Amino acid sequence: MSKEGLTDPQVDFSAWYNELVVRADLADHSDVRGCMVIKPHGYAMWELMQRALDDSFKATGHVNAYFPLLIPKSFLSREASHVEGFAKECAVVTHYRLKNDPNGGGVIVDPEAKLEEELIIRPTSETVIWSTYSKWIQSYRDLPLLINQWCNVLRWEMRTRLFLRTAEFLWQEGHTAHATYEEAETEAMTILNECYSKFAEEWMAVPVVKGVKSEGEKFAGADHTYTIEAMTLDRKAIQAGTSHHLGQNFGKAFDCKYVDRENKLQFVYGTSWGVSTRLIGTLIMAHSDAKGLVCPPRLAPIQVIIVPMGRDEETRERTFGVSDGFADELKKLGIRVKVDKREKESPGFKYNQWELRGVPVRIEVGPRDLDAGTVVVARRDTGEKETVAVGEAVARAAALQPIIQQALYEKALAFRNENTKRVDTWEDFLAAFEGEGGAGFVVAHWDGTQETEDRISDATKATIRCIPLEPLIPSDGEPGACVLTGKPSERRVVFARAY
Amino acid sequence: MSKEGLTDPQVDFSAWYNELVVRADLADHSDVRGCMVIKPHGYAMWELMQRALDDSFKATGHVNAYFPLLIPKSFLSREASHVEGFAKECAVVTHYRLKNDPNGGGVIVDPEAKLEEELIIRPTSETVIWSTYSKWIQSYRDLPLLINQWCNVLRWEMRTRLFLRTAEFLWQEGHTAHATYEEAETEAMTILNECYSKFAEEWMAVPVVKGVKSEGEKFAGADHTYTIEAMTLDRKAIQAGTSHHLGQNFGKAFDCKYVDRENKLQFVYGTSWGVSTRLIGTLIMAHSDAKGLVCPPRLAPIQVIIVPMGRDEETRERTFGVSDGFADELKKLGIRVKVDKREKESPGFKYNQWELRGVPVRIEVGPRDLDAGTVVVARRDTGEKETVAVGEAVARAAALQPIIQQALYEKALAFRNENTKRVDTWEDFLAAFEGEGGAGFVVAHWDGTQETEDRISDATKATIRCIPLEPLIPSDGEPGACVLTGKPSERRVVFARAY
Repeated sequence: MSKEGLTDPQVDFSAWYNELVVRADLADHSDVRGCMVIKPHGYAMWELMQRALDDSFKATGHVNAYFPLLIPKSFLSREASHVEGFAKECAVVTHYRLKNDPNGGGVIVDPEAKLEEELIIRPTSETVIWSTYSKWIQSYRDLPLLINQWCNVLRWEMRTRLFLRTAEFLWQEGHTAHATYEEAETEAMTILNECYSKFAEEWMAVPVVKGVKSEGEKFAGADHTYTIEAMTLDRKAIQAGTSHHLGQNFGKAFDCKYVDRENKLQFVYGTSWGVSTRLIGTLIMAHSDAKGLVCPPRLAPIQVIIVPMGRDEETRERTFGVSDGFADELKKLGIRVKVDKREKESPGFKYNQWELRGVPVRIEVGPRDLDAGTVVVARRDTGEKETVAVGEAVARAAALQPIIQQALYEKALAFRNENTKRVDTWEDFLAAFEGEGGAGFVVAHWDGTQETEDRISDATKATIRCIPLEPLIPSDGEPGACVLTGKPSERRVVFARAY
Repeated sequence: MSKEGLTDPQVDFSAWYNELVVRADLADHSDVRGCMVIKPHGYAMWELMQRALDDSFKATGHVNAYFPLLIPKSFLSREASHVEGFAKECAVVTHYRLKNDPNGGGVIVDPEAKLEEELIIRPTSETVIWSTYSKWIQSYRDLPLLINQWCNVLRWEMRTRLFLRTAEFLWQEGHTAHATYEEAETEAMTILNECYSKFAEEWMAVPVVKGVKSEGEKFAGADHTYTIEAMTLDRKAIQAGTSHHLGQNFGKAFDCKYVDRENKLQFVYGTSWGVSTRLIGTLIMAHSDAKGLVCPPRLAPIQVIIVPMGRDEETRERTFGVSDGFADELKKLGIRVKVDKREKESPGFKYNQWELRGVPVRIEVGPRDLDAGTVVVARRDTGEKETVAVGEAVARAAALQPIIQQALYEKALAFRNENTKRVDTWEDFLAAFEGEGGAGFVVAHWDGTQETEDRISDATKATIRCIPLEPLIPSDGEPGACVLTGKPSERRVVFARAY
């Protein structure tokens, strides 16, 4: 770690984020434009996220499978609105062989190895999966199919940012097939409620607004799209996960039919849903501070860091022994713990480094404290330090885990509430979005038309993040007049500038 | 499941394998040439494999990370022998955008979106990882780096076969960086001994020969390659995993240096090692039979299938109740269990289907047996059925798991031993490889030269699978005369036709 601190997030949130990601060893830029290297510490967070999400998918009846990376180009044109949404940002494979450059310049593409039909690296897998489903599904007895896959996808993004928007990213994509509209609707809602929003709130400690996307913001190929929307510390919105009801759109595009109980041929209904490594960016932007990452304990690769001190061998023997004892006991409690025994780094350097990396609790084991029968237990989220008896340190470090988890959630919720306002006039709406940065959530009435949405967005760079499924406060659900046109509105929707 | 059985593996092993993979719901062909769909049942096996291997990597000090899918073409030329080994079979990305065909024919590649430098889909990641390591490593204190990644790779194979050889496949690839030759050697051996061969023998129940590859068969870019070699039921060899000591080859190619304790600049040593979804093919070919997959219990997604019978509601209530009770108890014991309550399928159909899918133990719960206070417990591997008291069924089904695991290993080991012979004359060697099929392992002396290896291979289509690290029987380790040239040989090596 460099000796300099991070840029102050209050001064330059964007620079702070970029520095934090690299210096906390979460991710790094690669040699390929827009593609990231996820470093071990960041990947360990992703593994914890994967495990929790995967458990929730399996608990709701899903199984995992794997579909090909490459998609025939012609598949993309099968669903008309889908190709419009994805065609412009694909990596295209045109050849299948390199050869030695006869002029001695390394390797060149072998012009004789040109593919008859170009292949696309999947930006998302609806097309290749529905093409497969059309072979697997014949009868209502083959339904539902509840399949998820964990994989990499690639979208040729022009402006990229580690975790938030990269060309290649890791994600899960669920693709389910159903006999009826109602079953598909239940599925899309189950994922939103039982998997995504629970994960965001209970694991990431990030409160989310659950809602439906407007027509203009829905997934290309969906009937309608559900979303969870979080707020970042710079008061922007970030879409953390989406669950799409695909209707029969892909069933029709890929001629996927089933024979129902009355022996009639019907098109299959579908859903798709995904969350990605973007969640790591969301987590960072929801909780961290000028010292670095603040990681909720349930997703922290190291939950307790123990720093034993001592300048001579004899002292170290003593502090190391106590530290190893703590670590053994914490492991028995299921806590992820590490003892930092590096000899060349000072305690202060170590504190800074583990704070940068977001470890929720630190135990400082110093010889003088030990003489007094105590150690120091420090919280990453508040910075509070307490002196506790040696015999109570393990219990305290363990007890702090759910306390910090809950505190982070409550702090984020309070922050979101403070930065959510109701606006009823166009003047106030424009004022709310004055300047360039995040302006929080602006909850206002909207007449429900695409035209008005576009006009609002053009004027303010704010978009409708979602039409909340449940009002944030009861009065949000009452009817009113559109903030721009004055036309009738059934309920308020959430506007924000977004990542 | 079709009513017809599989082709007899004794009659046509290849057809049997292809049918089994598809009909046991392990994998399917996709719409992209050479790429497979891994179906949920096959993927569940892969998840169990991943978990066991990942635990062993972490127990030996490794962490996971993720590196980009795409590799700049020029990277491949950096390590001279590496490019020779991989350049000819890469998918090449040349463009980054599609556009609507102005003539209305769907989408076409946008000629204006041509990449300045073509990108390769990783066939393996040494190049992109060593390029990254050269930025991460400065000092001996940055070493060792012990990193693994789970990902997809792609090699443009002309003749493909589900699991065994597909264009895209899933694998893990470990890439480690070390200060010294000795440390890298220890690492390569740790992976071979503590991870790969233990996994093959203890989880897959497949005995393997651990050895070093000859120069002709080693990894392109390695100093030397260790391998584990298994025998299939058609008496061929299959390479199940490899661990490469890369020497300083990639350190030099990517200018990856570190400052040692004496403040001198040194090139970094490396290893790489991988196993893939090919392990699923290996497992199938090592244990299965004419009825379908035989899966070792530790890797079986379902370890016990319970089939309750009953043609009327009242009987079913009784058999279902007993079955659910069994399932609850088995789950408490950590056994993966399923109750097959489908009403339209006959018990016989269900037995065949779960045998095809390789479930190790079946419990048949029939009303007459229940009247007598018993159920039937059947073993997939031997076909044996036993009638046991209802109160003992759970304990018996659980106890059979390690018994079957061990029995499969012993059976495979006996098969390998029966099909391993020592040959001392060229006449006998040629006779051993008469015909086209697998001829088992032929353990013979070899003079150690590439020329002899090539001549033997040309004459017999057999290759040196490995030079065993330990003799299979003590006399294999004694010196002798090369089976072809009569020149001196230090020890016997293993020849076989291979997948």
